[in-house]
Amino acid sequence: MNDVFEIGLLMDFYGQLLTEKQMEILDLHYNNDYSLGEIAEELGVSRQAIHDNIKRGKAILYEFEQKLGLLQKFTEQKRKAVEILELLKGINIDKLDNSGKESIGKIQEGVEFIINRI
Amino acid sequence: MNDVFEIGLLMDFYGQLLTEKQMEILDLHYNNDYSLGEIAEELGVSRQAIHDNIKRGKAILYEFEQKLGLLQKFTEQKRKAVEILELLKGINIDKLDNSGKESIGKIQEGVEFIINRI
Repeated sequence: MNDVFEIGLLMDFYGQLLTEKQMEILDLHYNNDYSLGEIAEELGVSRQAIHDNIKRGKAILYEFEQKLGLLQKFTEQKRKAVEILELLKGINIDKLDNSGKESIGKIQEGVEFIINRI
Repeated sequence: MNDVFEIGLLMDFYGQLLTEKQMEILDLHYNNDYSLGEIAEELGVSRQAIHDNIKRGKAILYEFEQKLGLLQKFTEQKRKAVEILELLKGINIDKLDNSGKESIGKIQEGVEFIINRI
């Protein structure tokens, strides 16, 4: 997982634990690809202040992941759910009765629900 | 969800954010059904101290759930995964080819993995 992608996910999980300012800065940098200089200009503060906020915000995100490990847990589940979806799509359901076909459809929707909630 | 059960689950998610002492006391009370008096005797501290630790510990757990909502998210996923498992078990797979039968078995294992990781 690359750093930018991972921090984006960590923000989904733990972003509410950051200050509003940290959240804004990390969001601009990691989700919207702003450079530190661009954020500094946008917010009218020094580049160093942006750097410090990013450093502190990242440290908080990684600290909580280290303690709670929820991103890792969710990532494993998502991987498994995607595998299940592939298996479902590979089943030749022609010979199933209607109730069976309907169940396969509902299972697929259910797995998609799980993936999208992760 | 009753209070005791809910706090047990919140401890699974956020327990690492409690102090060691809070965790020990909440674990004795909520997971092992010790009364406040029994914990006080066990740890050699006042009943009031136990009460305060439980109150503070619970407040931390609910504060993080209020901010992060992970228990709610996981609970919805688990409910959906259990539904999927029921649907799977209801499918008459006799008419599926061997590869289809094998896939249904693997899907069932995958869903059980997701449920157990939640």
